[in-house]
Amino acid sequence: MKKAVVLSSGGIDSTTVLAIAKEAGFDPYILSFSYGQRHSHELKAAARVAAFFKIKNRLVMDIDLARFGGSALTDNIAVPKTMGEGPLPATQQIPVTYVPARNTVFLSFALAWAEVIGAWDIFIGVNAVDYSGYPDCRPEFISAFETMANLATKAGVEGHGKIRIQTPLIHLTKADIIRRGVSLGVDYSLTHSCYDPSQQGLACGRCDSCIIRRKGFEAAGVQDPTVYVSDK
Amino acid sequence: MKKAVVLSSGGIDSTTVLAIAKEAGFDPYILSFSYGQRHSHELKAAARVAAFFKIKNRLVMDIDLARFGGSALTDNIAVPKTMGEGPLPATQQIPVTYVPARNTVFLSFALAWAEVIGAWDIFIGVNAVDYSGYPDCRPEFISAFETMANLATKAGVEGHGKIRIQTPLIHLTKADIIRRGVSLGVDYSLTHSCYDPSQQGLACGRCDSCIIRRKGFEAAGVQDPTVYVSDK
Repeated sequence: MKKAVVLSSGGIDSTTVLAIAKEAGFDPYILSFSYGQRHSHELKAAARVAAFFKIKNRLVMDIDLARFGGSALTDNIAVPKTMGEGPLPATQQIPVTYVPARNTVFLSFALAWAEVIGAWDIFIGVNAVDYSGYPDCRPEFISAFETMANLATKAGVEGHGKIRIQTPLIHLTKADIIRRGVSLGVDYSLTHSCYDPSQQGLACGRCDSCIIRRKGFEAAGVQDPTVYVSDK
Repeated sequence: MKKAVVLSSGGIDSTTVLAIAKEAGFDPYILSFSYGQRHSHELKAAARVAAFFKIKNRLVMDIDLARFGGSALTDNIAVPKTMGEGPLPATQQIPVTYVPARNTVFLSFALAWAEVIGAWDIFIGVNAVDYSGYPDCRPEFISAFETMANLATKAGVEGHGKIRIQTPLIHLTKADIIRRGVSLGVDYSLTHSCYDPSQQGLACGRCDSCIIRRKGFEAAGVQDPTVYVSDK
């Protein structure tokens, strides 16, 4: 079986990507990050998802991006509620939930691990349709990262192969992603999306990520298994 | 003063780059890494260098690349002695001292910090002349990283400016680098290059990095301040 590094945050997208990678016949090496996020619910979700898929190789890297600051996801900055979503118009402000260079950092670690284990494929659940408008979710970023990755590593020098950054969700709507996952047997009740959950891990229902998730289940015609604070 | 993130390993190259960045009028934000390297002498050197230059802003990030394995600099793999140096022929094996994707990871963190503090310039002391033959020291890698960086961040989306990866040493010989540093007042006795130092931090004198360093001082006609194990 071909190895692949799969980035997993425990959310809908990365969980669906994991199911896609498995279905495509890859042996997934799961990489998650404790990056200074304000809550640990997404890491717990990533662990549940890895157990669900009976993953043999999994690493949680400890990298404290909060030391740089600059994001509502790592700092004591309020997470905006009901802020809207969708592709980013050229002039739109990037939301405060953006973590500077996060996907670049995550993919760099994935690249390091891929090189060590001899994997050519790195899967990441970025999406440029129903997303929060982060620059590092766009196809042109992924393509530039792939070019760079092949110059950064033995791959480029020795010509043994080519690193591929696999983004099977990049042009799908959230509803498409959910339908795809359901068809692959994904149990989305294991996943976590909320930027600002309660201490018990209940989703706020009002942040950007909750809204995109909710609308996705609605549009897919799939029952949303999420327990929101307002349901209680 | 314009801010710049400067990567510092405590070696000759990054120390010279720091002097160059200061001379060019930048306010340097120094970034070093505890990345699971087998010894702490390079971090001690980086701290000495930062003190020498009276640096106000400095971070040492903790990222355990050793968890991935795959390098003599992080694992229990012997560091080869007297292995030679110079540009990498297309067919040459990359040395076991190569740490997979290390510069990609380091530059990714530098990019994150640069974005948070509002710096457009990132300085790195890569060199493609007298070097160990690592793929992530080549100009084509740096150029690809810069392209990616401008798509990864707010820079690319909002069009406020452009991230520049500054590599003032990339085409210099080690002797040129040392002469440049001496002219800028660098005290190279503070720096550390050896891949395999004694417990006290004395340079082995026989690894790739020591050999390149030694020859560099010789060719520059500058007294080598390094204390080698064999001198004792």
